[in-house]
Amino acid sequence: MKLSARNQIKGTVIEVFKGQTIAHVRLDVGNGIIITSSITNEAVDDLALKRGDAAVAIIKASDVLIGK
Amino acid sequence: MKLSARNQIKGTVIEVFKGQTIAHVRLDVGNGIIITSSITNEAVDDLALKRGDAAVAIIKASDVLIGK
Amino acid sequence: MKLSARNQIKGTVIEVFKGQTIAHVRLDVGNGIIITSSITNEAVDDLALKRGDAAVAIIKASDVLIGK
Amino acid sequence: MKLSARNQIKGTVIEVFKGQTIAHVRLDVGNGIIITSSITNEAVDDLALKRGDAAVAIIKASDVLIGK
Amino acid sequence: MKLSARNQIKGTVIEVFKGQTIAHVRLDVGNGIIITSSITNEAVDDLALKRGDAAVAIIKASDVLIGK
Amino acid sequence: MKLSARNQIKGTVIEVFKGQTIAHVRLDVGNGIIITSSITNEAVDDLALKRGDAAVAIIKASDVLIGK
Repeated sequence: MKLSARNQIKGTVIEVFKGQTIAHVRLDVGNGIIITSSITNEAVDDLALKRGDAAVAIIKASDVLIGK
Repeated sequence: MKLSARNQIKGTVIEVFKGQTIAHVRLDVGNGIIITSSITNEAVDDLALKRGDAAVAIIKASDVLIGK
Repeated sequence: MKLSARNQIKGTVIEVFKGQTIAHVRLDVGNGIIITSSITNEAVDDLALKRGDAAVAIIKASDVLIGK
Repeated sequence: MKLSARNQIKGTVIEVFKGQTIAHVRLDVGNGIIITSSITNEAVDDLALKRGDAAVAIIKASDVLIGK
Repeated sequence: MKLSARNQIKGTVIEVFKGQTIAHVRLDVGNGIIITSSITNEAVDDLALKRGDAAVAIIKASDVLIGK
Repeated sequence: MKLSARNQIKGTVIEVFKGQTIAHVRLDVGNGIIITSSITNEAVDDLALKRGDAAVAIIKASDVLIGK
């Protein structure tokens, strides 16, 4: 499946931390860039996300602010 | 000012394209990663964004999906 | 690829309307439910979206408000 | 009150699960479609959301990705 | 209808500007605070939004960043 | 740093409540308006957010719905 999201950045999961309903997942996408994502615990279980997994950070262009 | 957003990725503006109300801005953040942002034309003018500018892509963790 | 987004609703594209930078896409997901999406023109081109296509509306749980 | 959000989908609450700050609410909107929402615990209390309630999932068009 | 969104700020529409698909709407909410919203042209038509209207800016808590 | 976000509303932190992964922060921005934000616990720590701090609520125009 191809996605409309303009930003699809490949990386490696370096941390998965689950709270009661929301989890934080960290991806190392290279070049010293770490991307942090907040997703549901359920999504973590559904994707069986764990440290070391190859994964993709997907971000809609309308969710990116610019600072200068 | 320090921001709560967990993702603040430095790069260089490689393209600014304005529509009638919404513009697309593309940042090269290194490692072959290009980040696309949709912001208002007004924001482009306000920040005087142009090709070659150093800029930062700012993304809230709750706006990042994970694919695996 | 499996996605973290909790809402992935299958349907049929019934309309694609492109502006200068942002397009509107409408999916019929059955049961009288039409889902409207705003995505970049570029995404429309990239996915070659057109009336009649099978497609999926993907929505992060954190982007759903509840009214009662 | 009329809302600008292009997606307002009526359904029935089938689950409310509260974490420490964020809750997950699931709506059955018919046709086998379940919509999951993450909202604050406070919102759950404010709306007195509970299983069996008629409710509406409200989603801004700019928050809908398309997959094909 | 009561909404889960934690931020519902009453104001007066001071500007409506339509592009080809996306419009910008500005609300004066008092205290010198102007809130800008990007919504679909269709939503502007559907709500018949015009300068002088009483309206409400509705923002999900998960869409608010904090700067300090 | 200047931000593309059209809404940057100054206020005072009146409450910080941390869950396991997500915190709620409330800002009094004057005129009887309280803005609630959900951010990561990590962001709260990073900004050392506490009651009484001067802070700014930052909201992208595309994340603002209008009700009328």
